[in-house]
Amino acid sequence: MKPRLNIVTLGVKSLQISRDFYKKALGWEPAAGSDENIVFFHHGGIVLALYPLDKLAEDAEVPPERSGFSGVTLAINQDSKDAVETVFNKAVENGAKVLVEPRETLWGGYDAYFADPDGHSWEITWAPFWEYDEQGSLKM
Amino acid sequence: MKPRLNIVTLGVKSLQISRDFYKKALGWEPAAGSDENIVFFHHGGIVLALYPLDKLAEDAEVPPERSGFSGVTLAINQDSKDAVETVFNKAVENGAKVLVEPRETLWGGYDAYFADPDGHSWEITWAPFWEYDEQGSLKM
Repeated sequence: MKPRLNIVTLGVKSLQISRDFYKKALGWEPAAGSDENIVFFHHGGIVLALYPLDKLAEDAEVPPERSGFSGVTLAINQDSKDAVETVFNKAVENGAKVLVEPRETLWGGYDAYFADPDGHSWEITWAPFWEYDEQGSLKM
Repeated sequence: MKPRLNIVTLGVKSLQISRDFYKKALGWEPAAGSDENIVFFHHGGIVLALYPLDKLAEDAEVPPERSGFSGVTLAINQDSKDAVETVFNKAVENGAKVLVEPRETLWGGYDAYFADPDGHSWEITWAPFWEYDEQGSLKM
């Protein structure tokens, strides 16, 4: 079994606040296995998990302190500029912090950025050269 | 098109060092579209990208300063305890920083953690209750 990324876990201050945020802002429903300790979202072949930040740091045996940029961005691709705006606006209406308003990009696409309640950075993006399958996975 | 995670981008200090690290430590080959400005790895339905940290922060219009825990962990699932050790040991032999040596977990699995050259945290994990398809995607 070739090593590959299967799960992305975001450390969060409040599981309840983050679960509500992702449900309202992006429409994501917690999957089976989610409970008061952890939340899973199924995204095509991978899992996005929410887990308390202090417990996540404890699990990785690193100090939980963090400041500034996480150094990681997470992108949601859409199939049109309008869809980028729709997803971005709904997120902002539901508490996302605006980082970058929708804009034309230098590489010919269209994107916007917001931060979730813990400062995790999300990019909503459209690119003319990307195609998707029926699951919304990038065709590669 | 339902919003979902499509791309995970890790900000890195040196694209060359990180590209070499992931190739040697995990066997990942840069995909089409990779060049001296960005690196893409295809992981089932999603893309893992490496991009210079300062440019990533500039793109998201956030200050590039960061310290401590990123608040994000990335997991690679394997189908046996032995495979966890094999992947972990190869990563460490190729420059990964040990965070947690392979161990039995409280939830009945087996895992280990390492950090990449920029401190991004990777968990190598086995769980008795997970199944995978032929692409290595978690069956859900």
